[in-house]
Amino acid sequence: MAAEEPMETRLVWEEGGRTIRKSIAVTMRTPGDDFQLAAGFLHGEAIIRSFEDVEDVSYCLEGAEPQALNIVSVTLRPGLRFDAARLERNFYTTSSCGVCGKAAMESLQIVGCEALAPSSFRVRADALLELPRRLRDGQETFSRTGGLHAAGLFDAAGRLLDLREDVGRHNALDKLVGHCLMKDDLPLVDRVLLLSGRASFELVQKALAARIPVVASVGAPSSLAVEVAEAFHITLVGFLGPEGFNVYSAPERIER
Amino acid sequence: MAAEEPMETRLVWEEGGRTIRKSIAVTMRTPGDDFQLAAGFLHGEAIIRSFEDVEDVSYCLEGAEPQALNIVSVTLRPGLRFDAARLERNFYTTSSCGVCGKAAMESLQIVGCEALAPSSFRVRADALLELPRRLRDGQETFSRTGGLHAAGLFDAAGRLLDLREDVGRHNALDKLVGHCLMKDDLPLVDRVLLLSGRASFELVQKALAARIPVVASVGAPSSLAVEVAEAFHITLVGFLGPEGFNVYSAPERIER
Repeated sequence: MAAEEPMETRLVWEEGGRTIRKSIAVTMRTPGDDFQLAAGFLHGEAIIRSFEDVEDVSYCLEGAEPQALNIVSVTLRPGLRFDAARLERNFYTTSSCGVCGKAAMESLQIVGCEALAPSSFRVRADALLELPRRLRDGQETFSRTGGLHAAGLFDAAGRLLDLREDVGRHNALDKLVGHCLMKDDLPLVDRVLLLSGRASFELVQKALAARIPVVASVGAPSSLAVEVAEAFHITLVGFLGPEGFNVYSAPERIER
Repeated sequence: MAAEEPMETRLVWEEGGRTIRKSIAVTMRTPGDDFQLAAGFLHGEAIIRSFEDVEDVSYCLEGAEPQALNIVSVTLRPGLRFDAARLERNFYTTSSCGVCGKAAMESLQIVGCEALAPSSFRVRADALLELPRRLRDGQETFSRTGGLHAAGLFDAAGRLLDLREDVGRHNALDKLVGHCLMKDDLPLVDRVLLLSGRASFELVQKALAARIPVVASVGAPSSLAVEVAEAFHITLVGFLGPEGFNVYSAPERIER
């Protein structure tokens, strides 16, 4: 069975000479790569841009076991500017225009996400067809438990570079991006992302923050995932299997 | 494609002569059955016990389109007692014991969830094997988009009574339970729940609040889902397919 435990992420920063500590998220996750998970989450929410924005990341060891390894504290570097008020409200609402897909997309622009620039990055269609099998081959844990979502990072030739797994599909991607962030590998402008499940708005949002030009999923995309991919010029591939796939946006990055 | 839009749930209640309005959740969901979604969510979080606890549920039409149908306001009946402080903190943390699976389980007891009592409810193994096919047959939307999670409710003979679909698996179950709540069909003591995906802690928690004795999933359960099922005496079935299934807890409810 896949392990599942709650993890709380706390943010610590200086403001007007005071130290502010705030719990910003609790997620049910598979323990492991917890610092990467916290860093990737903060990156996807545009609170940090690189690992230099992080002064310290550590477990809160104040309490007794067993929860000691379930609280991760991230201290931002002094002087980092971010919109702390965003932590108070819900991430997909803006005061100007309420709660809707359009507002969700606009919030991406508000936090500084720009559309991907045209580039020469291309991936061959026959390489794409191979990705799900390569991801599964890489999922040793999956073979044991059958219970984990996976996110895999590939190069243009379809080589699997890295993957992360988790009971939560958002967490798998946060861990993958957080790992790259901590290695100073962002932006991921020449990479292909494969998601083992479906492509939602939030997953495409995280890929956009990491500047990944091609996002593929084994399952279906949602309508809002397609809208974001179109607006920000991400190539979105769905229903990817050994026999074929659908392309929903920016098809020029795929070579037939 | 499956539609995906954010929905905000606002809670309205009286406290000390004042009216308090609070945004308590934003979820990415497939539009439709929004009142059921809000009601089911509040039930799973033990804020309401029956639809009599709800004085009014309505869309917030204050704003302009298109977000008008993305904000649902739930007004609690005057005099309803609930732990408003829980809304301030994260649901899986308790001040006493921090963030861990044990704390998550204890929080279920704190909000009044008791283990299911022994009952004569039984379901035949050969009826169980039929459920995934019957759920899929019922998923007209699924056939069109391939992008939706489903939660289905069955009787002991394996007849499909109701199902709900959503881009989010938690939402599908909230909509199903919320629908039953609004029809005054809770508790669901003689029902079988089938989840199209994996069984997580949060899904079993929602089933427990609705008192569903048998929870089956096509995918794998997480470790914490199994712990909750054991502790609260829910029959948890995983990897349910036409050829067989695993039973993780309370196997006596399944007749071979």
